[in-house]
Amino acid sequence: MTNVKMVRNVLDKNDRLADDIREMTATSNTVLFNMMGTPGAGKTSLLEALIPELKKDYQIGVIEGDVATANDADRIAALDVAAAQINTDRFGGSCHLGSEMVKPALEELDYQDLDMVIIENIGNLICPAHFDIGANYNIAVLSITEGADKPVKYPLMFRESQLAIINKIDLLQHLNIDIDEMLTGIKDINSKIDILQMSAMNQNDGVELHKWIADKMD
Amino acid sequence: MTNVKMVRNVLDKNDRLADDIREMTATSNTVLFNMMGTPGAGKTSLLEALIPELKKDYQIGVIEGDVATANDADRIAALDVAAAQINTDRFGGSCHLGSEMVKPALEELDYQDLDMVIIENIGNLICPAHFDIGANYNIAVLSITEGADKPVKYPLMFRESQLAIINKIDLLQHLNIDIDEMLTGIKDINSKIDILQMSAMNQNDGVELHKWIADKMD
Repeated sequence: MTNVKMVRNVLDKNDRLADDIREMTATSNTVLFNMMGTPGAGKTSLLEALIPELKKDYQIGVIEGDVATANDADRIAALDVAAAQINTDRFGGSCHLGSEMVKPALEELDYQDLDMVIIENIGNLICPAHFDIGANYNIAVLSITEGADKPVKYPLMFRESQLAIINKIDLLQHLNIDIDEMLTGIKDINSKIDILQMSAMNQNDGVELHKWIADKMD
Repeated sequence: MTNVKMVRNVLDKNDRLADDIREMTATSNTVLFNMMGTPGAGKTSLLEALIPELKKDYQIGVIEGDVATANDADRIAALDVAAAQINTDRFGGSCHLGSEMVKPALEELDYQDLDMVIIENIGNLICPAHFDIGANYNIAVLSITEGADKPVKYPLMFRESQLAIINKIDLLQHLNIDIDEMLTGIKDINSKIDILQMSAMNQNDGVELHKWIADKMD
């Protein structure tokens, strides 16, 4: 009983801070995207493909979440946009971002001057979906190499997201994977979710994702 | 402060139960392997490749951990070995197996009659490594498609494991990935770890893994 109550207190505090974040960013007209998915789904590569085009129209900031290393923030900073790294090592190796980590990172980025902040959450198909971090939109990224059954085995992330990206679609031809099973699995969990099949490595594929994001900025 | 203490209590209870499990299985001469890795690293496919050969020499049981579905236990039961499914949905969607879940599953499998039990942990590169479940050996599975930097970004699992399997190695030729960076990353974290590069889809590749496991059974 005591355990359950303690977990609830932590979640309550997280959710209150998430509401604060939504209020702060609404005031400054900054839209927050929360990108989630397993390690190696290709989240950082998607951002590297997307940002050079997006930054022509928007002031962008990126928050990178990782257990260890600043590898991803370095990759994003190389694109000449504001990037902040959160390492959860100092939060006990936490497997997800929480609002108490995101709020100071937004302040570090001077979010008031930005049109959008994209948060790349910790690589993990489970835990990040349990924690509201004040984002306006959640994006679930999975790689086609992960297998067709992953959405039904890890449903919460797809339930909580407005967009699912099936990445590395160029590898489908080398795999024994039924893409229709994956698509049906996602839609069965969340009939309203948008789905994009793409490869971060293929420049043309980025156009649809760009459009999806721009649509949310109107 | 209270939070920290509560987490410690939960961990203490988990670790005490893990010690119980080690004692139980030592008495019955049952060796416990704990297989961990991201969703889609190919853990179940590895077991499907491995078990038909292993069961010629050993009495085997398998415990499958998933947030939802019994897909994996069904795949293993089709190989005609004892399989138990743990769904963590009823543990609040837990992102890892804990000793309190593994102990009853071992009993369900009549572990006393088995030479080995292979536990396929929840698909997650972070959380399972934080929880001792009484295994004698930990095996970290990652797919080459996940990218060369994953070990240094998620170090704990590689620190806690005796074997790292780099799976789906047949796809390397289609990827722009530096395998040497991945190997160096693993060895920098844990110089004593064994590493196998293989594809679960290639029957010949299974021989080395079979040997590694048989070696631990002596």
